[in-house]
Amino acid sequence: MTSVYFRRAASDDLAAIVALLADDPIASGRESAGTDQCYAEAASAIERDPNQLLAVAERDGRVIGVLQVSFIPGLTRRGMWRGQIEGVRVAASARQSGIGRAMLEWAIEECRKRGCGMVQLTSDKRRSGAHGSMRRSASGRPMRAISSRSDQAGGGR
Amino acid sequence: MTSVYFRRAASDDLAAIVALLADDPIASGRESAGTDQCYAEAASAIERDPNQLLAVAERDGRVIGVLQVSFIPGLTRRGMWRGQIEGVRVAASARQSGIGRAMLEWAIEECRKRGCGMVQLTSDKRRSGAHGSMRRSASGRPMRAISSRSDQAGGGR
Repeated sequence: MTSVYFRRAASDDLAAIVALLADDPIASGRESAGTDQCYAEAASAIERDPNQLLAVAERDGRVIGVLQVSFIPGLTRRGMWRGQIEGVRVAASARQSGIGRAMLEWAIEECRKRGCGMVQLTSDKRRSGAHGSMRRSASGRPMRAISSRSDQAGGGR
Repeated sequence: MTSVYFRRAASDDLAAIVALLADDPIASGRESAGTDQCYAEAASAIERDPNQLLAVAERDGRVIGVLQVSFIPGLTRRGMWRGQIEGVRVAASARQSGIGRAMLEWAIEECRKRGCGMVQLTSDKRRSGAHGSMRRSASGRPMRAISSRSDQAGGGR
């Protein structure tokens, strides 16, 4: 693939990120096109929290992927920090090219730099590719990776 | 059961909390007894982060339960905040008395107050009781609950 790089999202990436969310085959019904105020408020909350990293993949000046990493302090496992990766999305035109996996590897490295001893991926259980990528990305690293699958319970809305 | 109440943990609860972590049948091998510096540093990181809530259950002046809630801002699902509950532990002497479930219900209510539209429970897959409690606690509430199970992949340490 041509050169792709990963970086923290900037405020002027928001429209492209929301378009990626709305373009997703599994989650599109949960999103709305256009940069509604709800997304601007969420982006602002993420920006204010130093333990959140919203990141994008860029190729040829275009945003083709997004994910969010939460760095979570905790007491368990002798006070181990955990990195949690969610909301991984790749543009339709760039799928099946390894970008999702490369983005996950970059995010895992960011977790390592922040001192996380474990990385969790929270993902819809229908995203079997994400879980496979996570296992491949984690192999051979001095880090424990956990793929979490979601089972819905209780009343949805 | 006699009166139990739930509150944010204070710094002088740390020794009791660490004792609960070390007393757990599933996770004790991952912890160390005594308040090692690692726990003090983790408690400090949690305290500094306004999106973390370390909470205890207290009965007759004694800490008999602990859990952590992370309030996570995110772009997906139209900028929905998520509450994530982890590290749920109940003292051996107080197990099987409904305290774990009551503590989860309290935590879910804290998530609701903070505007979370979803609650996730991350728990070792061997804790079948925790997942059952989560489903029962969530039923009938205007909130979607997700029980996450962990599958380890990659090299552990």
